[in-house]
Amino acid sequence: MAFVLKSDNESLAMNGLHLNGQDSLVQALLTDFYQITMCYAHWMNKKSESHAVFDLYFRKNPFHGEYTIFAGLEDCLRFVENFRFSSSDLEYIRQVLPNAEEGFFQYLAELDCAKVRIEGIPEGTVVFPKVPLLIVSGPIGICQLLETTLLNLVNYASLVATNASRFKLAAGDLQLLEFGLRRAQGPNGGLSASKYCYVGGFDGTSNVLAGKLYGIPVKGTQAHSFICSFSSEADLNIRNITVEGKEIDLYESSKQKLTWLMNTINWGVARSELSQGELASFVAYAIAFPTSFLALIDTYDVLRSGLINFLSVALALHDLGYRSLGVRIDSGDLSYLSKEIRIRFKKVAQADPNLSFVASLTIVASNDINEETIISLNEQKHEINAYGVGTHLVTCQKQPALGCVYKLVSCDGEPKIKLSQDVSKITIPCKKLCFRVYGKSGNPILDLMTIRGDEDFTQFETDADGNKVEFQASRTEKYEGSILCRHPFEEGRRCLVSAECQIHRLHRVYWDGEVKEKLPTLPEIREHVFSELSKLRADHKRYLNPTPYKVSVSSILFDFLHEQWLKNAPICQLE
Amino acid sequence: MAFVLKSDNESLAMNGLHLNGQDSLVQALLTDFYQITMCYAHWMNKKSESHAVFDLYFRKNPFHGEYTIFAGLEDCLRFVENFRFSSSDLEYIRQVLPNAEEGFFQYLAELDCAKVRIEGIPEGTVVFPKVPLLIVSGPIGICQLLETTLLNLVNYASLVATNASRFKLAAGDLQLLEFGLRRAQGPNGGLSASKYCYVGGFDGTSNVLAGKLYGIPVKGTQAHSFICSFSSEADLNIRNITVEGKEIDLYESSKQKLTWLMNTINWGVARSELSQGELASFVAYAIAFPTSFLALIDTYDVLRSGLINFLSVALALHDLGYRSLGVRIDSGDLSYLSKEIRIRFKKVAQADPNLSFVASLTIVASNDINEETIISLNEQKHEINAYGVGTHLVTCQKQPALGCVYKLVSCDGEPKIKLSQDVSKITIPCKKLCFRVYGKSGNPILDLMTIRGDEDFTQFETDADGNKVEFQASRTEKYEGSILCRHPFEEGRRCLVSAECQIHRLHRVYWDGEVKEKLPTLPEIREHVFSELSKLRADHKRYLNPTPYKVSVSSILFDFLHEQWLKNAPICQLE
Repeated sequence: MAFVLKSDNESLAMNGLHLNGQDSLVQALLTDFYQITMCYAHWMNKKSESHAVFDLYFRKNPFHGEYTIFAGLEDCLRFVENFRFSSSDLEYIRQVLPNAEEGFFQYLAELDCAKVRIEGIPEGTVVFPKVPLLIVSGPIGICQLLETTLLNLVNYASLVATNASRFKLAAGDLQLLEFGLRRAQGPNGGLSASKYCYVGGFDGTSNVLAGKLYGIPVKGTQAHSFICSFSSEADLNIRNITVEGKEIDLYESSKQKLTWLMNTINWGVARSELSQGELASFVAYAIAFPTSFLALIDTYDVLRSGLINFLSVALALHDLGYRSLGVRIDSGDLSYLSKEIRIRFKKVAQADPNLSFVASLTIVASNDINEETIISLNEQKHEINAYGVGTHLVTCQKQPALGCVYKLVSCDGEPKIKLSQDVSKITIPCKKLCFRVYGKSGNPILDLMTIRGDEDFTQFETDADGNKVEFQASRTEKYEGSILCRHPFEEGRRCLVSAECQIHRLHRVYWDGEVKEKLPTLPEIREHVFSELSKLRADHKRYLNPTPYKVSVSSILFDFLHEQWLKNAPICQLE
Repeated sequence: MAFVLKSDNESLAMNGLHLNGQDSLVQALLTDFYQITMCYAHWMNKKSESHAVFDLYFRKNPFHGEYTIFAGLEDCLRFVENFRFSSSDLEYIRQVLPNAEEGFFQYLAELDCAKVRIEGIPEGTVVFPKVPLLIVSGPIGICQLLETTLLNLVNYASLVATNASRFKLAAGDLQLLEFGLRRAQGPNGGLSASKYCYVGGFDGTSNVLAGKLYGIPVKGTQAHSFICSFSSEADLNIRNITVEGKEIDLYESSKQKLTWLMNTINWGVARSELSQGELASFVAYAIAFPTSFLALIDTYDVLRSGLINFLSVALALHDLGYRSLGVRIDSGDLSYLSKEIRIRFKKVAQADPNLSFVASLTIVASNDINEETIISLNEQKHEINAYGVGTHLVTCQKQPALGCVYKLVSCDGEPKIKLSQDVSKITIPCKKLCFRVYGKSGNPILDLMTIRGDEDFTQFETDADGNKVEFQASRTEKYEGSILCRHPFEEGRRCLVSAECQIHRLHRVYWDGEVKEKLPTLPEIREHVFSELSKLRADHKRYLNPTPYKVSVSSILFDFLHEQWLKNAPICQLE
């Protein structure tokens, strides 16, 4: 007897989904309930249309680092573009707000992001704490409703892209492959991981759906289970490979190569010790993939079985005109094994001038790799050419949340501040203009936030060749020809920046009732990450004790912030 | 000028999705590329139909604990039920396997799970390392293809359900609310988190979509931004509330209550120090939600502003016949603040016999709560009634991956073993029968795995009243009337179990070409978790140094495992 899987909940699910093209779950209802209750309270108070400004930012760089990669912008824009409550959403909200006035549902039914403006930093840019990644402005009713989803879309994307970029910095020119799907937070977690690891600098993914959807190169060969499924040559149902119309017994020719290898090089192992099942499995795999043969060689013993079996098949393929790719090791001491493998590769290459290609075959390593493993392998020296990384990459084990926040900084033209006992949690009020200042050598040296005046934003429109704008020095205090930049909270920490520095505005208008910028493709965003990181000074990027990048405010904003702080902070009465 | 968001990649995305009802991303292509390359190699070798058995299990309980909650089964079954490559999937596979033979695509086009059988442990059951959660058997071609998606669906679901259950154990009878959407791995990560935290013991979620899709109670009130958006009473566009056709100025009556509170109780604060914007925001919120007024009171100062403003409004509402719910604190010393709040609640209750309800108002705490915070609060004593938990819960900060694996244990009737230098990574070969043995007091005392014979599985069918079956003692060694249970790897660790113990089989057949069991609803799974945890001995559940639960093998399986181990392990030659 068969049971039907769809329960009541499922049929509910069937109703509400299929909204957006790419991801049916990114929808207006994917939010915290309190956004809806607050929205109702604003509506009841006839304040839904009050003009609000929210900053979306994070407070601390992740992974004990001093930089972050901003990612998730396009996902945010797609969400905003599609923001609408469906009729089944409204029906559900009615259930959970049984006493709400009918007019509210009419308001929600008509609600979209036509009146919202979003200024953002370009996706893939290196960003720093406290500087808003997104400045969302418009009627408080709708802007408040966007909070949770925007945070959800930016948080993990930026976190995992940053993580990936750190792996890339550690690994240098080595190939990086993302293998994390099985350890991600569900299907979509896995898909986001693959997408944003690619953005952060990975070269490929094992995730086939990510390959299909985003055009990311997909990589992978075989698992231990494939090797284990062969016990002996009896499991080889097909032993022949067809080359130019000729049938060649690849198993036989591999065995001949094995004999040659055993006779030519002292492997310190008896032929009888080599796994026959492993050899058979490699032959089967090579018949299927003669042009891209890469073997997992640690199922039995890397140096005493896997490597020799691999070479036997690789040499047999070579006789047929096929160049094998190399080996993968998934356990053991990766530094030692990779060096020993390379030594043996070179021995084979030296044994026969036709086999010189063997010396430079690829070695992929993939056992629980994290940033520290790569750094430690660099110190120990190794012969690895590519890393396959899963768990630590996609779960961001070292710090699994970026902790972005979305804070009201202005309402009806009035600056807003949220105080906290913890100074790092105090918000910086006002709608801001944010600049990045570049030093003579082209490195960014600090970010500067100042108060945005009432002037029309568009007068600062970026020029044709990119992001450079004339800096409105009048908005900051000039100090003997320089601009005074202040630490937002610590009075004593100030610095001067020459007014002749290159100063670029950080934000662009991405949304103003419609998408206002042509968005880059995924490879373009990835290139932007590389370019951004290459400009960032090495001491900000290093693993140990990186130098914090300066995030500063203008004198005007500093004074205003501190005035508001004192005005709003209660004085604690002791005894 | 508006830009169109859909890029080439997006249109690709448009093609491939809309497959399954609930979650369009859970599809055949959501897998690692090597599953497809292995599948092709098997197909080329005419081995796709070889009968394989895979165990899906984990090696170590998460969070330094000694138990795990199994979750994700229904998602797995839905995936298996819908498993099909679409024509656009096939087109994509053709691109990434350009040299594959045409017949393979015909094979893939017809592939489904009709020949697959899945035995599983019921969802929500307490489970332990090494014991398979799922036993997947059938043709190796299709069974291998299922690996990644099954792992993805079980890994995070089980991890977060286990995490939630640990919060529940720590919090006891207190209400637990999941607030993690903004910190989850993207939209689906957030949805899975809400679903499986509920399964693990949480009482509600802030995630509205999870409420709609799964029927989980949704909770939430207001954020700091709501409070901050009010500067003074001037921001109150509406001050009246209608009660039984009468308009009452709630702001005025709240101010009167404030006067009474200031005169009646010594708050140690001047009235002028209280935030007027906060009072106005509470009034606005109370007008919208008079029947469920709960206020966030830490925007300015919990004891010197928020609490007093809250009480003013709550007392005004009380005069109108509305009972307020309580307060939420999101910063500061939660133990101290909750106790001080309760003291003040009681003072108000004592000041007027009509106000006795105030003494027991709810206190919700929600600042970066983790399991340790709750345990520490229990030790310090506190007056909190409910916790709102986000980041630590959904990211499983303490251990963000469960590390489930999917291992071949038998192929064409031949047992398979995967060796490793690391004993904990050695697989236990053979298709297994798994039992849970219960002690006299009804607590489970150990799990026992033995080799499954060739006898038809159905002869063990569970009886009407549940999972109990006659234990086939013939399959284990009897030892003076008892059953010898052995540690799978350590020779010296053995124990005897009286054959009179209650012995239940762990697995049921959930899939055999179709769904074979009626699946429980989400609340039923949640109840099962509670029941399972109540049966588990306290020492397995405790936070510090919990006792490991015994997972054992029968003598027959022990001997077989060790014979295979020795047979397959290489002997290392030193010098």
